[in-house]
Amino acid sequence: MTAEREIIAAIRARAPRFRGGVRIGIGDDCAVLQPKPGHELVVTTDMVLEGRHFRREWHSPESVGHRCMARGLSDIAAMGATPLAVFLSIAVPAALAEPGRGQGSGKPSWIDRFTDGLLALAMEHKVTLAGGDTAESPGGVLTDIVVLGEAPKGEALLRSGAKAGDVIYVTGALGGSAAELAALERSPRWRAEARGLAKAEDGMHPQLFPQPRIAAGLTLRRRGLAKAAIDVSDGLSTDLDHLCEESKLRAEVDAAALPVHPLAMQAEQRGWAPSALKLALNGGEDYELLFTARPETRVPKQIAGVPVQAIGRMLPANALKPRMMLRNADGSTEPLAAKGWEHFRKG
Amino acid sequence: MTAEREIIAAIRARAPRFRGGVRIGIGDDCAVLQPKPGHELVVTTDMVLEGRHFRREWHSPESVGHRCMARGLSDIAAMGATPLAVFLSIAVPAALAEPGRGQGSGKPSWIDRFTDGLLALAMEHKVTLAGGDTAESPGGVLTDIVVLGEAPKGEALLRSGAKAGDVIYVTGALGGSAAELAALERSPRWRAEARGLAKAEDGMHPQLFPQPRIAAGLTLRRRGLAKAAIDVSDGLSTDLDHLCEESKLRAEVDAAALPVHPLAMQAEQRGWAPSALKLALNGGEDYELLFTARPETRVPKQIAGVPVQAIGRMLPANALKPRMMLRNADGSTEPLAAKGWEHFRKG
Repeated sequence: MTAEREIIAAIRARAPRFRGGVRIGIGDDCAVLQPKPGHELVVTTDMVLEGRHFRREWHSPESVGHRCMARGLSDIAAMGATPLAVFLSIAVPAALAEPGRGQGSGKPSWIDRFTDGLLALAMEHKVTLAGGDTAESPGGVLTDIVVLGEAPKGEALLRSGAKAGDVIYVTGALGGSAAELAALERSPRWRAEARGLAKAEDGMHPQLFPQPRIAAGLTLRRRGLAKAAIDVSDGLSTDLDHLCEESKLRAEVDAAALPVHPLAMQAEQRGWAPSALKLALNGGEDYELLFTARPETRVPKQIAGVPVQAIGRMLPANALKPRMMLRNADGSTEPLAAKGWEHFRKG
Repeated sequence: MTAEREIIAAIRARAPRFRGGVRIGIGDDCAVLQPKPGHELVVTTDMVLEGRHFRREWHSPESVGHRCMARGLSDIAAMGATPLAVFLSIAVPAALAEPGRGQGSGKPSWIDRFTDGLLALAMEHKVTLAGGDTAESPGGVLTDIVVLGEAPKGEALLRSGAKAGDVIYVTGALGGSAAELAALERSPRWRAEARGLAKAEDGMHPQLFPQPRIAAGLTLRRRGLAKAAIDVSDGLSTDLDHLCEESKLRAEVDAAALPVHPLAMQAEQRGWAPSALKLALNGGEDYELLFTARPETRVPKQIAGVPVQAIGRMLPANALKPRMMLRNADGSTEPLAAKGWEHFRKG
């Protein structure tokens, strides 16, 4: 048996199956999925590259696996959909498929621990690992995660559903993920703690173990609360810009209302980052839900155990004005630029 | 607008949409798909790495795009399914997103030409590009292609459907793809011709422009001809081994019956490869369909314009005997080992 088949067999052995959704999983040319009658399928793909989305010195293998899964699930959450299946494609240097170095033989390899992290989160959400691909990477680790989910026909939450006058909301807190990244960069103590971390409670390590808001997304759709939604993956400013673009509207954000993550304030205080507000606006990878609701809709202060905060409102399109405005605490306003995470960023 | 969004916009502009299947394509958190009522979804993912699956010096950008698409479609064909949508994740060095060097500005970049090659084949099969992801790669090109298709519930062709006594068939010809790879390696003339090749007729360039057997797969399922199927992606010996494993059977292959691609014979004659038979058995990337039919089934000599050849039969499992045997032209038999393409192959 060759190494690729060994890896596939090891992943297959670690992967639980859940009732419904997946009829044929790993082991055929294709997986076979059966969405519920009257439902449509939602599909998201996300690439994660070592050195770009994570660092092997900072992120434990379990954290990398968790984050790959969280990134895909978060897109499913933003549609108000139920996740069904995940497909994992992973290219790794051959050494990472070998038993952990300096740990004695039989100890889990980097890939084993990565898979454990990914599957732990998949199991929480009853998602079946239904397929994927493996290859040896000449450089660093590269993964591509595909998550499939289902939603009743025509009911998935889209970016394009907002109307002028809608109130903008966000779940949880913002800027924590970028703040923890700054902590990892600046603090040897933080790095030492992170290295062995195989899991963490919601909010404690927002960069290493972000929590996708599946339950909140489902509630937003089922109760008809949200009219448009997107997840905060690139950063609030960039994701709100996407939502404005697809809904053909402008937006105003109230700086004082932003739920800034405590870690972002800590990062500012310790000098790890220049500004907690900037982290909250542009940090990215928070995997919270950004959504709009009609002004007359009563949106609870908490949904599925996660705080929900009104942070601004949608405005009619106007080609002469900036697409987004930020209202400062003193009442003054300024243009808000989309400065969240983008690959291929120049300079 | 940042470069990533430019790339996505450029790909989006090049991608046609087809009726049915895809309700929401590129531009939201997820794509939204609506399989036909009474149908189930089939899903396949395939990674392609520069230096491992192709070489930029040998394969034109259009060839790389075509091959990525062909690889995914071939898995759909092996299920007897109708392809609906493709998701393209691609990580490339930034330079490949820039206009072609030495060609003047405004000329298509490597990614533009790659996308053209991929979409040309997608259009032939009415497949919509429904999403994906882009990133800058620190090393070479890496793509992950996800193809979704649909088949009537319970009717998809599986690897596990064979029975002892079934006749083994293969479409088209074998070994051509590996033979052309040998030609590219050994012949400067072949390389010079390949460099500018944006498309090719079926069978003419089996390595650069393989043809997925979608129509043949659909016929095999609809007419109930095939009971088990797999595509020849790793090489006949390895793919037949997979089919034996999943069907819990053994197999015997008749060497004289193998439809060896003319290019494989040419490669043997010119000394580019040691043996045409070995290319046909182990070459891989032919993307033909390997299937089994009950002995009483009348299988046409040609299906959807592609020749079909009986090459052996399935035998009852026997732990004391090799899983696969090769019957030589002189009537002698020998064990047939799975020696097709495998990543992570050692030595």
